[in-house]
Amino acid sequence: MKKYTEMNHDELLALKKELDKEFEEIKAQGLALDMSRGKPSNAQLDLSMEMMDVLKGDSNLKCETGVDCRNYGVIDGIPEAKRLLGEMSEVDPEHIIIYGNSSLNVMFDSIARSMTQGVMGNTPWCKLDKVKFLCPVPGYDRHFKITEFFGIEMINVPMTPEGPDMDMVEKLVSEDDAIKGIWCVPKYSNPQGYTYSKETVERFARLKPAAPDFRIYWDNAYSIHHLYDDNQDFLVEILGECVKAGNPDLVYKFTSTSKVSFPGSGIAAVAASKANLDDFRNYMQIQTIGHDKLNQLRHVRFFKDLEGLHAHMRKHADILRPKFELVLDTLDKELGGLGIGEWTKPHGGYFISFDSLDGCAKAIVAKAKEAGVVLTGAGATYPYGKDPKDSNIRIAPSFPTLEDLGKAAQVFVLCVKLVSVEKLLG
Amino acid sequence: MKKYTEMNHDELLALKKELDKEFEEIKAQGLALDMSRGKPSNAQLDLSMEMMDVLKGDSNLKCETGVDCRNYGVIDGIPEAKRLLGEMSEVDPEHIIIYGNSSLNVMFDSIARSMTQGVMGNTPWCKLDKVKFLCPVPGYDRHFKITEFFGIEMINVPMTPEGPDMDMVEKLVSEDDAIKGIWCVPKYSNPQGYTYSKETVERFARLKPAAPDFRIYWDNAYSIHHLYDDNQDFLVEILGECVKAGNPDLVYKFTSTSKVSFPGSGIAAVAASKANLDDFRNYMQIQTIGHDKLNQLRHVRFFKDLEGLHAHMRKHADILRPKFELVLDTLDKELGGLGIGEWTKPHGGYFISFDSLDGCAKAIVAKAKEAGVVLTGAGATYPYGKDPKDSNIRIAPSFPTLEDLGKAAQVFVLCVKLVSVEKLLG
Ligand SMILES: Cc1ncc(COP(=O)(O)O)c(C=O)c1O
Ligand SMILES: Cc1ncc(COP(=O)(O)O)c(C=O)c1O
Repeated sequence: MKKYTEMNHDELLALKKELDKEFEEIKAQGLALDMSRGKPSNAQLDLSMEMMDVLKGDSNLKCETGVDCRNYGVIDGIPEAKRLLGEMSEVDPEHIIIYGNSSLNVMFDSIARSMTQGVMGNTPWCKLDKVKFLCPVPGYDRHFKITEFFGIEMINVPMTPEGPDMDMVEKLVSEDDAIKGIWCVPKYSNPQGYTYSKETVERFARLKPAAPDFRIYWDNAYSIHHLYDDNQDFLVEILGECVKAGNPDLVYKFTSTSKVSFPGSGIAAVAASKANLDDFRNYMQIQTIGHDKLNQLRHVRFFKDLEGLHAHMRKHADILRPKFELVLDTLDKELGGLGIGEWTKPHGGYFISFDSLDGCAKAIVAKAKEAGVVLTGAGATYPYGKDPKDSNIRIAPSFPTLEDLGKAAQVFVLCVKLVSVEKLLG
Repeated sequence: MKKYTEMNHDELLALKKELDKEFEEIKAQGLALDMSRGKPSNAQLDLSMEMMDVLKGDSNLKCETGVDCRNYGVIDGIPEAKRLLGEMSEVDPEHIIIYGNSSLNVMFDSIARSMTQGVMGNTPWCKLDKVKFLCPVPGYDRHFKITEFFGIEMINVPMTPEGPDMDMVEKLVSEDDAIKGIWCVPKYSNPQGYTYSKETVERFARLKPAAPDFRIYWDNAYSIHHLYDDNQDFLVEILGECVKAGNPDLVYKFTSTSKVSFPGSGIAAVAASKANLDDFRNYMQIQTIGHDKLNQLRHVRFFKDLEGLHAHMRKHADILRPKFELVLDTLDKELGGLGIGEWTKPHGGYFISFDSLDGCAKAIVAKAKEAGVVLTGAGATYPYGKDPKDSNIRIAPSFPTLEDLGKAAQVFVLCVKLVSVEKLLG
């Protein structure tokens, strides 16, 4: 097929007529599909159902140090949970704090803490005139909403397949001490599925920020979420790199089992230097008497160890892989060579990132909605919901059934074609 | 026995000799007992063990509106959990938000939110020169630690058996718009076990604070925690009173199942007006994708309804009652009429409050420690850990076995006698 961008006016008009007809037909089907939600499907949730049975009415509910997990006590996590999430995070258990059911909550609380208490003895951010964060784009909308909520100015940094533009990151953080952090999803990033390269991680570890309280918010949400056994991305462990670079306090690493066990009923953790963890602990010991240790125990008894986690993730992959491949095949077959869109081909994570012709994303999402397919709102992947080129759309293939996903993908590519033709017609 | 305060020097000296001997004997036993921890005993925790079995690998894990509790979704609680904790809080489910595993965490986050976001559109507290809180004393140390942590100035308000000194509360809040809140444990208060009278609640509801963002932090942690079937305290429901008084937004009510099911693995809730709840929701929808709905479901399926909760609390009472009575009997028998201490006789909750002669509490706690009995630190029941009279000690009878508690109570009364005699000898 000819590139749309090389078609003349009449060709485009003819094409539009055809596509309009197709669209009316699809619309008439009255679909109600959703490709917007980055959450596991029911089949994936079923994989963890035995977790409901590991703690029983007659179980021993003591952790390995003999503490009764049914009662108050142990502020920062039972040892076996620290070990499990330590393995998952590739750090020693003593560099781990176990939290409640959401890593996002830990990130939010970290910003809230920095606002009112400051970071490791530095001035609380709420006392400063200006606080800024770097935001690799496209990125995760909920990160950006947190910094927006606290009135933190967000600066876009373009993503590349190797990670954020590190020339820009290095320059900005070394020059401006109002820049206090950067949001990173370093592995199978949301939404592109990119994994930061070795060089990127090393450059992160060697940053020389002007602000002593600058921290990298390293949200390793998809650390073990591979789609393939043989084609996996590898991410250099950053905490160790930071130590090597003489910057031990530079990074907070976040993780959770939300997309391993049950989203909203998993366990979360932060990994960081002792000095940083003391900062976290000073806050949390005032904030709560402790997190849900029974759920920590439940997770440890179900997964046992890293090998258990990996075995479980392979089952997730078996369900997710065909979905990613279906969407990618559809994109290839229907849009390949047309010059009206580009997309990523991740080896893991939950998302595919699609870039349309400039100025088309909002219209594509609206068009899909008209045909009964919900997509992540255009702009959501940018701070303040503002995609400067209006071109990025996040595709989330995990939740629908394969059958529904097939239909939704067809609607999507049709909408891309149609909106692109309209755009080219001017 | 003669009042210590009426003894002459020689009588006191003789008494001291006798008590010293007794103390050395007890010390020689090498006891290791603890009356400091306000947490349920193992026998109480065993009461909820069947809760481990209500969600099974083959259970239907949908809430009543059909939402799968295993996945993301439902930010402010599943309907049946709102109903259950609504009944427990005596408010309609639509005035309830369900949180995670700790009500203290919700209180902390409410203060954190007020610091950075402000209350219902008012200036964030971190932008004000001065923020103050009223603290009925003696009170709960973890409340005071939260306000201290945020640099909020705390003002002591004396407790009476009817609740805080309301003349003082009314005067202070109407005159000073820097006063933004008051910590209340209105039922079976920590540590005195007092329940606010009808008049106190009505006066709270009718407060006319100078600050529009003044809120009553109504921590109803012991709402259904009676010791007796026939001798229960009754607390007027404050949210309704506030509505009647034209002050619908004046109060945040907190509760949790920490001392109903499992401390640290229960569910928490806040009850408030719609306007206040919207404030809470604006925050929490940025903070997290949602709390642990499986644990909400687990609680609802186990307790079913308010009657189920009450039936369960009667079993707790059967275990707690003999412990309270043992301590109270020992205090009566050993200290009654001696003029060296006063104590409360609660009908519920987790604590007994003891007041020694002025200037003796720290010495009593130290002495008990010498004999192997840990008591709550003297001063803990006051802001900044400073009991101006050094006289209040919180006794927590719940955790030790009856046997251990008997020994600990004997040590306690001996230490009170000994320190009092030393004090009177000058
Ligand atoms: C990058 C990223 N971080 C964090 C989260 C949420 O994690 P949690 O459930 O632990 O709060 C998500 C969920 O979609 C995510 O994509
Ligand atoms: C008055 C009071 N409020 C709150 C709590 C803690 O509640 P939660 O476990 O829900 O954080 C306690 C625990 O001792 C308490 O005594």
